[in-house]
Amino acid sequence: MTTDLTEAVVDSLKDTTDPRLRELLASLTRHLHAFVRETEPTMAEWERAIDFLTATGQTCTDTRQEFVLLSDVLGVSMLVETINADEHGTDSTVLGPFHMTESPVRELGADIDLVGGGEPCVVSGRVLSLDGTPLPGALLDVWQANAEGFYDVQQPEVQPAGNGRGLFTADAEGRFWFRTCVPSPYPIPTDGPVGDLLKATGRHPYRPAHIHFIASAAGHVPVTTHIFVAGSEHLDSDAVFAVKESLVQDFAETDDPSLAREFGVPNPFRHARFDLVLNPGRS
Amino acid sequence: MTTDLTEAVVDSLKDTTDPRLRELLASLTRHLHAFVRETEPTMAEWERAIDFLTATGQTCTDTRQEFVLLSDVLGVSMLVETINADEHGTDSTVLGPFHMTESPVRELGADIDLVGGGEPCVVSGRVLSLDGTPLPGALLDVWQANAEGFYDVQQPEVQPAGNGRGLFTADAEGRFWFRTCVPSPYPIPTDGPVGDLLKATGRHPYRPAHIHFIASAAGHVPVTTHIFVAGSEHLDSDAVFAVKESLVQDFAETDDPSLAREFGVPNPFRHARFDLVLNPGRS
Repeated sequence: MTTDLTEAVVDSLKDTTDPRLRELLASLTRHLHAFVRETEPTMAEWERAIDFLTATGQTCTDTRQEFVLLSDVLGVSMLVETINADEHGTDSTVLGPFHMTESPVRELGADIDLVGGGEPCVVSGRVLSLDGTPLPGALLDVWQANAEGFYDVQQPEVQPAGNGRGLFTADAEGRFWFRTCVPSPYPIPTDGPVGDLLKATGRHPYRPAHIHFIASAAGHVPVTTHIFVAGSEHLDSDAVFAVKESLVQDFAETDDPSLAREFGVPNPFRHARFDLVLNPGRS
Repeated sequence: MTTDLTEAVVDSLKDTTDPRLRELLASLTRHLHAFVRETEPTMAEWERAIDFLTATGQTCTDTRQEFVLLSDVLGVSMLVETINADEHGTDSTVLGPFHMTESPVRELGADIDLVGGGEPCVVSGRVLSLDGTPLPGALLDVWQANAEGFYDVQQPEVQPAGNGRGLFTADAEGRFWFRTCVPSPYPIPTDGPVGDLLKATGRHPYRPAHIHFIASAAGHVPVTTHIFVAGSEHLDSDAVFAVKESLVQDFAETDDPSLAREFGVPNPFRHARFDLVLNPGRS
């Protein structure tokens, strides 16, 4: 009878106009029913699941996305990101739940740490096409938590809007550079249903220190990624499974007074250098 | 790599204190990842799914449970109900999303149609143990929509609280009887995300006419079920897949002046008679 029921649900989708929606829902139905048949939840467990999903939806606000967080801690976000990633350019990783406001347009060299809260550093590099050609005018959308591990949207009364964020345009040689503070590891929000899930499963909520990037350029596949700070705690147990070795970057202690002057930072300073490589393959 | 990711998530659950929770989450992770690998959603499709789940959570209120509705229209509720059903007694079916307030205690024979909106009828029968022994003092929790197809909680300004609901105690011979109106087919709520899903899949939102019951008695397994009105529209295409043939009951036109007098209804009247059979197997 239970297999009949699954096929009855799949059959009920036969008049779906969009064939892709039909494919997605038929597959979802089969996998969801297979999960239920395998685990045989009690009515109380089913009710608990309904309550959990409801609370997850009701925890979402304009500045908080608890379902993205749930997708993140179950590795679903990273799986979808990996499936959609371009294999050739810079490795991608998850978008995360905090890319929810527009990053303010900033000049190259600007400091995105508007409150001066942490250890100053410089991030610089180039945006390149797969063959090494620089991509002048490439756009870099950058966002990060402050030195205490909070994004601007999480602390509207403490941080000015746009703190830790910037939208940069690479120069004529595809170069970019900006100032910020070295990011810290931080816990994902634990005061909602996803935090309860982590507690119940004995998992810590920390992400290793990172800066988010979306790099895009005309005629190229955009890439959504992070750079992770080499040596950061939790690199081997990211709560959202987003670390790729290729994305771990040295924020090297740099003693170079003339470079410090050029960047407008005190010497010595920490400096991460890396290039973002985009694939012209799809556009 | 994607299989590694799935196993990394499963492995992260290893410190879960409750072994059942670990089993449920590990199975959920594997089936959810299998769905994603099979369908390869685009980032836009993933975002649409996040938005849909968020809207579903945010549509829930004290008197509306959109996630139960989602579980219903995907056949998950019926599957869980069937897995948990006792095979021996009266067939069970879904609880549905409208068992959310306590049914008022009523005397046997009471009319649960407080506004007199539809065709009057009598529902009567016995609560029995599997071997046919009557179960005196068995409890019957009853709820139904009014003749227009709405539950009291959906129309707080039109229907008095408790309209269509009653908590009855079977008499010394296990008998029950009450008056109501013949229920009508009705659409499940279509003004939320689940309604959008039905529209997109070309499915109608109707349920065939039915009355809900939860029957319970000391030392017996309770049963959650409906009786469906024989001849009702949509018996073969219930939006929530809950019809079982054994639950379809004749609401027979009855011409019996003395019985009508006994029940306190005008003659002729419609009369559904059926017995609820509970299993002492588990308690």
